[in-house]
Amino acid sequence: MAEGSSAAGPVRVVALGGLGEIGLNFLVVEHAGAAIVIDCGVMFPERPAFGAGLFSPDLTWLGTGKLKFLGTVLTHAHEDHIGALPQLIKRFPMPVYGTPLTLTFARRRLRENEIAGSTDLRFFLPGEVIELGPFRVEAIRVTHSTPDSLALAIGTPAGTIVHSGDFKIDEAPVDGARFDADRFGRLGDEGVALLLSDSTNVERPGRSGSESSLRPVLREKIRNCKGKFFVSAFSSHIHRIRQVVDVSRESMRMVVPLGRRAIESVRFGIEHGQLDYPPGTFIDPAEAEFLAPRQLTFFTGGSQAEPNSALGRIAADVHPRVRVDAGDTVVLSSRAIPGNERPINQLINDLFRRGADVLHDAVAPVHVSGHACRDELTDMIRLVRPRTFVPIHGEYRHLVRHAALAIEAGVPPANVFVLEDGDSLLLDQAGARRGAVVKAGRVAIDGDEFADPALVDERRALAHGGAVVAIVAISAASGRIVGGPELISRGLTVGDGTSSLMRQARSELAARLAQIDPPVGPGDSRLRGNIVRALRDFFDDTTGHRPLVVAHVMEVE
Amino acid sequence: MAEGSSAAGPVRVVALGGLGEIGLNFLVVEHAGAAIVIDCGVMFPERPAFGAGLFSPDLTWLGTGKLKFLGTVLTHAHEDHIGALPQLIKRFPMPVYGTPLTLTFARRRLRENEIAGSTDLRFFLPGEVIELGPFRVEAIRVTHSTPDSLALAIGTPAGTIVHSGDFKIDEAPVDGARFDADRFGRLGDEGVALLLSDSTNVERPGRSGSESSLRPVLREKIRNCKGKFFVSAFSSHIHRIRQVVDVSRESMRMVVPLGRRAIESVRFGIEHGQLDYPPGTFIDPAEAEFLAPRQLTFFTGGSQAEPNSALGRIAADVHPRVRVDAGDTVVLSSRAIPGNERPINQLINDLFRRGADVLHDAVAPVHVSGHACRDELTDMIRLVRPRTFVPIHGEYRHLVRHAALAIEAGVPPANVFVLEDGDSLLLDQAGARRGAVVKAGRVAIDGDEFADPALVDERRALAHGGAVVAIVAISAASGRIVGGPELISRGLTVGDGTSSLMRQARSELAARLAQIDPPVGPGDSRLRGNIVRALRDFFDDTTGHRPLVVAHVMEVE
Repeated sequence: MAEGSSAAGPVRVVALGGLGEIGLNFLVVEHAGAAIVIDCGVMFPERPAFGAGLFSPDLTWLGTGKLKFLGTVLTHAHEDHIGALPQLIKRFPMPVYGTPLTLTFARRRLRENEIAGSTDLRFFLPGEVIELGPFRVEAIRVTHSTPDSLALAIGTPAGTIVHSGDFKIDEAPVDGARFDADRFGRLGDEGVALLLSDSTNVERPGRSGSESSLRPVLREKIRNCKGKFFVSAFSSHIHRIRQVVDVSRESMRMVVPLGRRAIESVRFGIEHGQLDYPPGTFIDPAEAEFLAPRQLTFFTGGSQAEPNSALGRIAADVHPRVRVDAGDTVVLSSRAIPGNERPINQLINDLFRRGADVLHDAVAPVHVSGHACRDELTDMIRLVRPRTFVPIHGEYRHLVRHAALAIEAGVPPANVFVLEDGDSLLLDQAGARRGAVVKAGRVAIDGDEFADPALVDERRALAHGGAVVAIVAISAASGRIVGGPELISRGLTVGDGTSSLMRQARSELAARLAQIDPPVGPGDSRLRGNIVRALRDFFDDTTGHRPLVVAHVMEVE
Repeated sequence: MAEGSSAAGPVRVVALGGLGEIGLNFLVVEHAGAAIVIDCGVMFPERPAFGAGLFSPDLTWLGTGKLKFLGTVLTHAHEDHIGALPQLIKRFPMPVYGTPLTLTFARRRLRENEIAGSTDLRFFLPGEVIELGPFRVEAIRVTHSTPDSLALAIGTPAGTIVHSGDFKIDEAPVDGARFDADRFGRLGDEGVALLLSDSTNVERPGRSGSESSLRPVLREKIRNCKGKFFVSAFSSHIHRIRQVVDVSRESMRMVVPLGRRAIESVRFGIEHGQLDYPPGTFIDPAEAEFLAPRQLTFFTGGSQAEPNSALGRIAADVHPRVRVDAGDTVVLSSRAIPGNERPINQLINDLFRRGADVLHDAVAPVHVSGHACRDELTDMIRLVRPRTFVPIHGEYRHLVRHAALAIEAGVPPANVFVLEDGDSLLLDQAGARRGAVVKAGRVAIDGDEFADPALVDERRALAHGGAVVAIVAISAASGRIVGGPELISRGLTVGDGTSSLMRQARSELAARLAQIDPPVGPGDSRLRGNIVRALRDFFDDTTGHRPLVVAHVMEVE
């Protein structure tokens, strides 16, 4: 059993991301000031906008909680679980645990932020146990859409906490590494205080199906393809790459990984023994130019229509080496992340314009989810038989539905807690109760810096209403206005009449300024305030728009 | 048969919107300079952004084509078919034909643009024929998700053109007004030169199912609901409103239409005999306050999570009169328009947070599409047996798949044309061929004005990179620089160091300006060009961002 005494108070589970909002998976388990972190992901905004390319969890609370951080445990290699590791580790250095493949992906992230060398990465394999202060963390193998994914069993002074990670129950995994149902069952026998379980697919009935069920589909599609065969999937989906390679080899095709991420994933897969093929299986685009279309399969990322992805450039016919032609088949082997539907539709339309046939999950069974559906979720609850249940990894509605499912599966309603980001749960031998709410949320990041929320607001205001800059020059000697007001606008009004509107605004402003007693200085807030108010009122009255108004007072010789 | 001689040249069908891009349905049929317009819709942008709330078709070509416009025929009341009527009619006055209900919705649009009184609206009922110059236009009843929808058969000197409108083949329509399969069959017997047919659901196998199949589902949900019952659907879906009212009356509930559009639709439905209920069936929210939750059904728009809709305000708990509580049921009886998924998910999450149970098409069969699926599309082609086929109303991929379906259904491949916006087809007795491409596209509108595309670009640039304004004051007397350069930035950089960056930019700019020989004047383009180039280079080098740079030279006394 774990060290530590429950006399030191309860064990606290703090949800800092990933609850009520997809992405940003980030959880802290704490006892008597000693804490471990489980996952630390990034979230992609609906569309890159206002300069914020990514969201990281808000780390403020970690710095104010007087906590000692003993380690971060990563469940698997997906960006929504590892992406904000650089932000975390830079501010709170601690060892990071994960499977070798997970750590390889994590190291890539850390390298981009130039802290790979200084981070203490430690292998943590299924069946292994690490002791972290009062916590005894065990890695349990689960199946998911990236290899070597883990669930965690965490022995604590308040009993065992099971964290499912992202999982499905795949009966025939591509690499033969099966979901460890036995271990979950034995944990259930021993008694589990709390189960935290993946809610993504709670709205889908039945079972998700095995990843390997895709192989005959891919085989049929590749056999029917007379030209080049393209498959686009999440680049970290190494099992899918493996199946693409297998059916390509059967059809005497070479595989060309396209795009930086896809190439890295293939390299990582080879390094970790997941893509064990003879030399010559993978070729680069330059070599592909010597081969006939029928001899080629391309594997690319970009299935979410990310701008500047290899597939996007091919669809737009601006890729330097690869083009899509009539007779080619493009398989989008993924499901749209909500918010990406329109760009994905545009991508499909563009590929059709090039003459390709495009297969996506709306028209053919070319994708299998990596998350457990309802029957598998019920299996997990019945194996573990937790005293307390908390749904994780889903939007709020998924959490509510997963909570209802847990009650159906036998967890007493009073022991089921729907937590949102910032909520916490206190566990002791007697049971569980809600703890204090802590600061949590998401912040935009740019490189390894946090973006200034005020800046993002400013850009949003500019985007919606444009800007007006009013300039007045005053004499350093006399304090009198010697130039202006002059107005500059950008992105301000629509339709005709812009210039007459600006003339009118200028003359109203000039009349207002004439009433102000000189002298004024450049730091005179009364003058600037008057300008801003006058222009805001004017544009609101005349156009109904609210541009960002900037008053600039300039001192001249 | 229609008037006019084919000696005057071919009949031209010009696709100006709605092909390759959902929305903006807008087609011109022309012969010897005489033209009719079929539909003129608006399109909603992914998210209201950059000040452009709506897109209208580009009308430029209509003004350059030396065409005489004889009339616009509206197939049905949806915004993507009637929304840009004000823009069209203001510039090209002509009579507008449609069913009474369609014209009622169209008049609402025209009234908003203050041209309702001056527009010549004429009833056009199923079975009726209007003669418009060389064209003989017949209205044919079809079934769709708004009542009184039409297909058109257009007699022309080059043979009959059938335009399907938006349709499904509903065997049990709510109002008993059935799809006129007989008439399509007889047109097929007489010979059809061209069929233009709705492609929306070509990716869905089978049949769409009858709208009336929803009634038992709604009945079951309302019976199980212990609290208030909310249904949200497109407000113009009067058949759906009718079914909601029917099951509400069975459960002894009053119906409260909520939101301006929903209230108008109920009023229009009553006026046109589609909602024929005793007084007291519909009540307003003030009256609802005197009734128990179990006695109330609310019908609202906002199922696409439109900002400021009644449902959105209820979900955010900021509606002045209505709230959602635990025990209430909210049915989202619609399908997400691509691009709206994230806001709709957010809406559902917010409703769950209020304690409601939310039913949407992912978890319950609470929506039936108004568009024909594959088997119905095949039925249409087999009824009409056209010589030539053009798929309309769909994204490019839908058009391609519908073209393939037409070939399967027996149309010779050489006679199937996938047109995009701006493409045209020339028809004569000998057959069809592609004509010249004309200017087409979409333009943002603001009120009844077209938005300036340059403005939209400017706002996009501001949103992505922010803006820097550089100001230099020069003496009117000497032409010497007497103030500045001073820099103002908004939305420019993220992270720390903004102010030191701006200081550095200013000093580099000052150094560059010191090399320019005085004197200069305020209109001096060399000075402004130097400033813009210097700052663009500076920010690109230091931040990698490309702000909008404005140079302003100010003359002072």
